[in-house]
Amino acid sequence: MNSFGRIFRLSVFGESHGKKIGVVVDGCPAGIALKEPDFRHDLERRRAGKPGTTTRREPDTLHIDGGVFNGRTTGAPIILIFSNRKAKSEEYAGLKDTPRPGHADFTAVKKYGGYNDPRGGGTFSGRMTVSLTAAGVIAKKLLAPAAIEATLLEIAGTKEYGKAIQTAEKEGDSVGGIIECRTKGLPAGLGEPFFDSAESVLSHLMFSIPGIKGIEFGSGFACSKMKGSEYNDIIMDDEGTTATNRSGGINGGITNGNDLIFRVAVRPAASIRKKQPTIHLITHQTAWISVKGRHDACIALRMPVIIEAAAAIALADLMMLEQKIPRIVREKNESG
Amino acid sequence: MNSFGRIFRLSVFGESHGKKIGVVVDGCPAGIALKEPDFRHDLERRRAGKPGTTTRREPDTLHIDGGVFNGRTTGAPIILIFSNRKAKSEEYAGLKDTPRPGHADFTAVKKYGGYNDPRGGGTFSGRMTVSLTAAGVIAKKLLAPAAIEATLLEIAGTKEYGKAIQTAEKEGDSVGGIIECRTKGLPAGLGEPFFDSAESVLSHLMFSIPGIKGIEFGSGFACSKMKGSEYNDIIMDDEGTTATNRSGGINGGITNGNDLIFRVAVRPAASIRKKQPTIHLITHQTAWISVKGRHDACIALRMPVIIEAAAAIALADLMMLEQKIPRIVREKNESG
Amino acid sequence: MNSFGRIFRLSVFGESHGKKIGVVVDGCPAGIALKEPDFRHDLERRRAGKPGTTTRREPDTLHIDGGVFNGRTTGAPIILIFSNRKAKSEEYAGLKDTPRPGHADFTAVKKYGGYNDPRGGGTFSGRMTVSLTAAGVIAKKLLAPAAIEATLLEIAGTKEYGKAIQTAEKEGDSVGGIIECRTKGLPAGLGEPFFDSAESVLSHLMFSIPGIKGIEFGSGFACSKMKGSEYNDIIMDDEGTTATNRSGGINGGITNGNDLIFRVAVRPAASIRKKQPTIHLITHQTAWISVKGRHDACIALRMPVIIEAAAAIALADLMMLEQKIPRIVREKNESG
Amino acid sequence: MNSFGRIFRLSVFGESHGKKIGVVVDGCPAGIALKEPDFRHDLERRRAGKPGTTTRREPDTLHIDGGVFNGRTTGAPIILIFSNRKAKSEEYAGLKDTPRPGHADFTAVKKYGGYNDPRGGGTFSGRMTVSLTAAGVIAKKLLAPAAIEATLLEIAGTKEYGKAIQTAEKEGDSVGGIIECRTKGLPAGLGEPFFDSAESVLSHLMFSIPGIKGIEFGSGFACSKMKGSEYNDIIMDDEGTTATNRSGGINGGITNGNDLIFRVAVRPAASIRKKQPTIHLITHQTAWISVKGRHDACIALRMPVIIEAAAAIALADLMMLEQKIPRIVREKNESG
Repeated sequence: MNSFGRIFRLSVFGESHGKKIGVVVDGCPAGIALKEPDFRHDLERRRAGKPGTTTRREPDTLHIDGGVFNGRTTGAPIILIFSNRKAKSEEYAGLKDTPRPGHADFTAVKKYGGYNDPRGGGTFSGRMTVSLTAAGVIAKKLLAPAAIEATLLEIAGTKEYGKAIQTAEKEGDSVGGIIECRTKGLPAGLGEPFFDSAESVLSHLMFSIPGIKGIEFGSGFACSKMKGSEYNDIIMDDEGTTATNRSGGINGGITNGNDLIFRVAVRPAASIRKKQPTIHLITHQTAWISVKGRHDACIALRMPVIIEAAAAIALADLMMLEQKIPRIVREKNESG
Repeated sequence: MNSFGRIFRLSVFGESHGKKIGVVVDGCPAGIALKEPDFRHDLERRRAGKPGTTTRREPDTLHIDGGVFNGRTTGAPIILIFSNRKAKSEEYAGLKDTPRPGHADFTAVKKYGGYNDPRGGGTFSGRMTVSLTAAGVIAKKLLAPAAIEATLLEIAGTKEYGKAIQTAEKEGDSVGGIIECRTKGLPAGLGEPFFDSAESVLSHLMFSIPGIKGIEFGSGFACSKMKGSEYNDIIMDDEGTTATNRSGGINGGITNGNDLIFRVAVRPAASIRKKQPTIHLITHQTAWISVKGRHDACIALRMPVIIEAAAAIALADLMMLEQKIPRIVREKNESG
Repeated sequence: MNSFGRIFRLSVFGESHGKKIGVVVDGCPAGIALKEPDFRHDLERRRAGKPGTTTRREPDTLHIDGGVFNGRTTGAPIILIFSNRKAKSEEYAGLKDTPRPGHADFTAVKKYGGYNDPRGGGTFSGRMTVSLTAAGVIAKKLLAPAAIEATLLEIAGTKEYGKAIQTAEKEGDSVGGIIECRTKGLPAGLGEPFFDSAESVLSHLMFSIPGIKGIEFGSGFACSKMKGSEYNDIIMDDEGTTATNRSGGINGGITNGNDLIFRVAVRPAASIRKKQPTIHLITHQTAWISVKGRHDACIALRMPVIIEAAAAIALADLMMLEQKIPRIVREKNESG
Repeated sequence: MNSFGRIFRLSVFGESHGKKIGVVVDGCPAGIALKEPDFRHDLERRRAGKPGTTTRREPDTLHIDGGVFNGRTTGAPIILIFSNRKAKSEEYAGLKDTPRPGHADFTAVKKYGGYNDPRGGGTFSGRMTVSLTAAGVIAKKLLAPAAIEATLLEIAGTKEYGKAIQTAEKEGDSVGGIIECRTKGLPAGLGEPFFDSAESVLSHLMFSIPGIKGIEFGSGFACSKMKGSEYNDIIMDDEGTTATNRSGGINGGITNGNDLIFRVAVRPAASIRKKQPTIHLITHQTAWISVKGRHDACIALRMPVIIEAAAAIALADLMMLEQKIPRIVREKNESG
């Protein structure tokens, strides 16, 4: 569904080339300082413009159209809306007949019987993450003083990735990457057995982000090669501080108060200029397509802030559920 | 929470050493043939007894105590109950004072203020997966003719793992592994944008299983090293059959009709006989502990059937949501 | 919460005097013809202007800002937005200090610590029902050919109510009423035991509407005076047609295929010009207040279309859950 | 669905004549004193035996089979199970062919295609309320010191109802009634706009109880005959104490701290000995049936404790949502 969360709840809407795109944030405590400039920094981090990202300069002007009064959240749903600029939708004509390999074109047609909006990927576009990023700004305020930081670990298999991206751009191709996310200062006790482990809730939200194909917590896949005596993190004090952090800050699905750490795998973007064969759904013949328009050679570059937002949203809901955030916040969080 | 699913819903209950353990399965269509022997095969696969698994011989006798009449599901909640045998709970005394490294002992005390049942890990025990396995039997019936198969890819980093397990057992240690799960015959169109992508729902359920620390779909983490032109699966025909399957059968969060493939990382069991230091929460001193009782040297060995069950449950709910399974099933699924 | 429904889901947002008010409608099948003029008739029915209703002429111009492409629903969330005109908010200044008797002023302050938007009742305003009415238009399309009709049974205890309203207006007072809602053409089988009986789901939504204080199905409260032999509806044929309809078309919480009938009690509006005492929350003294601005003398007059909408929304979700509405609608529902 | 609640969650299971009947209570705080005798009083109040109620003496022996350790709740799901005695199910044979007027026999067949368990009404039986009553005992503990009391207002339209019941019994008929429920000591602020008003959540649960056909809060339907100046409750002090209580303790869907008051209409039981015509679904002819077995002449007599339980469950969830009950309860609630 297009909503997420038990107490701190999001409902997203809009399409890549529709009139509006946005999110309703319900269940946010009353009293949080919030104004439009608060969103600028994270929205800017997500925006295009860096080498390796699309040169489409989306405006990303956010409007708070409800849920805030006199500069503070009211307890009512917060509505955040972005107006899309008029897009060159004609570039996407024909996508329903010749589905791009690796993209949602084919599955969208299967799921919605061809009624889906194909322009710019419609509701399957990475553009949807602008709403997630905005909701993440609110979630981060709720989590403070806990702080989340996501960083690029590698692109195209290397930490020195400038040249890999350049080559991909030149060839009309794309490259993937790995992002690590670390949250410091979380309380112990977040996560709900049996089904809503901290890992379950975080991974649920991470795999909502277009392009994520893997996640691992702490040592992750490497744990499969370790012995228990190597893997187990030794507890050093009453606060639960551990000497190592192979569990990624989560035991039995519950946060243990150490840094919460996970990594996600970002696939190379599906939309590439390089020619690829596909099936023409009307003629049933092979068709060669080259995706026109300006696309990211490396979507991972823009993703750290999105990963942070998704993590913040998931953790804010777990915090609310555990009653670690009151429903009326009185002093915390001066805006700005 | 201890429930999962939107239409096909589970609620689990019980503790490792409590009187009963079980699951309520709600939203199952009426008319499915179901009897107690149907569960035997999968429960047996999950049971202990193989080299590398605990020699505790849990009885695992399942009772269908509601929701089935004249051998068929009625549409009412199905209640599946296992009676636990009287366990040697004294073996676990002291776990609250000296939390096992890598285990939920510490986080459970933090979350529940020390009121949690510590015997056998209580509600954090791998024992809870017996309920998941049982619910999975029902889910598999709903998915038929689609079929799920999970297999061990490697243990302790190798495919030839007999010796690694033997060594771990001798040393009172444990080893991890990797399991691959493949589902054939699924329709295209399963998964719900934005938040309930097929990957989101599957990973949510996988990380409910104690011991899972990573998941990847299709090429997974390896995708981060590929170019788009290498990663994209070329569509060959109108049915969406692809030449390769690097996406794991999911594009844009929606199944594409090809095999759905993912792998999970299983950590080495936390409970080991080998001595480990921990903190004594009363004396605040380092304490050395050796976990008594009989434990699995390799929990991954028993896990394929659990992974299958979790996958079946997640997919059955997505199938119900997509109306691919009717609410009254008339001919399908002769029990046996 | 500000969302409702399991499959056909609404999320409402906005405040009476905020910039925007609207609703996200998620889970609507793809392929339904939908355009802005479709909403006019029901929005007009809800609007002010009749004798006994406020002379505030809210514009109620609806924009479909997502979820529709080429005149048909896409399967993605439908976003419906109304822009509020600049309201005379100063008329409501002081409401937090001197809460109106019978209104949400006091409880809103208690719940949100005074951070709530008090202008025009904020999120507690009857204005919120414009979103419900709009979502109802979509729900009615899904239910067709079943048809819902709500009618005023009585106002101020009488069917001939013109004079009662006139008197109330002259005295700066308000009057209540009773509305009956009848749905014809529903299939049997809607409603989910145990907790989501048809009555449960319908009443849940009815009591979301500001001003509703009672609901009864079929004979309702009168049933308490009947004998079973008088109350039971005799079944006449295989279709379940009954000779009478004292159950209101629902047995055991499940629709039986006969007309679904209920009545709701609408309280007299709390906001009246007539002077009333209240407590001044700063001075702790009695204060006499007269609610300024233009208000409905009889909110019940505008409510039938809102009741219809709420009923349609509840029933559409039950229909989706029972798989009586496909996820892709191909031929039905030409718009207009 | 067979589950209810956002944080304090129930999942019910079982059938009237199945092996077990019970409920999983999830989300209950840890640390609440709870033992089997705590349930006796309310279960006894619900039981048969009084004049006007069935002479079937159901054993109603409850077992706490999980979620409690050392006499206190653990934070894990609490599982409460009743074993049904072997029932005379043959008395119900033929119900699928000749559906009882006014009962769920017909709708159950429609909904479940005839696979439903018809014995004793199966999952549509009033027997299901034994689980609700048990869960209510836990909910009442959470609400303390707030206290709920439901009382019979009238039966068969009169307060002096002994004779009406006697007559009904003699004639093999049944009578209905009205029950009032009053909760004292609730905090202000419970209830969630827009869709989860206190009235919405309470009515949702009330209409889950078999036989309830109407609900009204405060003055209820009588409000439709009042003027605003008569209906509005004047606020007397900073605590929100009102001079009257026509709103039933709820304004704008939020509790105001005064007594919460509602009334429900209970229909006369459908199952009567008196002969009634119905349709024979095989022969398509009119058939005259007399319901055999022992049945309540007045189900309302046993209902006050069930209404209390349902109210307590709804309010406990709203209290949890509003963070008025901590997730770990340390001192409160000595059992007994």
